[in-house]
Amino acid sequence: MELYVERGFEQTTVADIAERAGVTARTFFRHFADKREVLFSGSAELQEELVAALEAAPASAPPLDAIRAALDVAASLLGEHPDHSRRRQSVIDAHVELQERELVKMASLASALADGLRRRGVTEPEASLTAELGIGVFRVAFARWVTGPRRKTLAAHMAECFASTTALAAGAPTPRA
Amino acid sequence: MELYVERGFEQTTVADIAERAGVTARTFFRHFADKREVLFSGSAELQEELVAALEAAPASAPPLDAIRAALDVAASLLGEHPDHSRRRQSVIDAHVELQERELVKMASLASALADGLRRRGVTEPEASLTAELGIGVFRVAFARWVTGPRRKTLAAHMAECFASTTALAAGAPTPRA
Repeated sequence: MELYVERGFEQTTVADIAERAGVTARTFFRHFADKREVLFSGSAELQEELVAALEAAPASAPPLDAIRAALDVAASLLGEHPDHSRRRQSVIDAHVELQERELVKMASLASALADGLRRRGVTEPEASLTAELGIGVFRVAFARWVTGPRRKTLAAHMAECFASTTALAAGAPTPRA
Repeated sequence: MELYVERGFEQTTVADIAERAGVTARTFFRHFADKREVLFSGSAELQEELVAALEAAPASAPPLDAIRAALDVAASLLGEHPDHSRRRQSVIDAHVELQERELVKMASLASALADGLRRRGVTEPEASLTAELGIGVFRVAFARWVTGPRRKTLAAHMAECFASTTALAAGAPTPRA
């Protein structure tokens, strides 16, 4: 990702990335389908961690609490590397095809979380709705974290966004500045 | 879209579409950037209608009620053509690149609705959270409508999904079948 920041995503070739990493292009393609995937290499792992956290939540936990427990794990994992997340986001924001890939990854995560909720016995449409709600909160909290003041943690943004969503769903009036 | 259903999306060329519509390929490209766009030609118009409905909601309406008013317009417009929506969805479901385009359109809609809420004086993160919540509900309701029994309307699915989301956000326990 250093190269994407230094030279720009368009200007960086797979050959450049392989050279910097000290591997051949063939080895690169054994690990990544294309140069976009370099930015999303952690997605599958993150999804596994979240699904595991969902499974580990107490059986008695309401669906939204179980999703929150999973997303708290994401906040804690991603929250360790704020500078990395900021740089990565600046590359993604500059390229439509990277934003598309990000949307696909988030949709896949929502779908995996809905599957996890169904395995916990949550019926439809509640499983899908809870997963969508959780991912929506995560998306907004993450965007605020990578663009906001550095002192505020991702976990703090998540807690704030969950609280706001609960209030909004309960019919809170328009907040005024 | 008839051609996509008859021959498959991959097998249909721009020349085929232009011929069926009785226009030249040049005219086709004056209206659509590529053959994917044919399936999304109504998106910009739908987005405008939704933003207009959001603006027309009473100034005193809480943010979620204003978003609901906008999405009710979508339910009413799309709800008139259930067979078209089902056919279109079956084409999209079969092609990853069409699912990507659909995700981009939904993200654009969420962003336009958040903008509309900010113009109503809703602060952040509430504007983005309400838009995400509304789009999440819409996505789940729409998916249930195009795959579920034909007698149930999109508006009925939307009402059900909004009610479930409100209950989930209020901490409703796991619903059991």
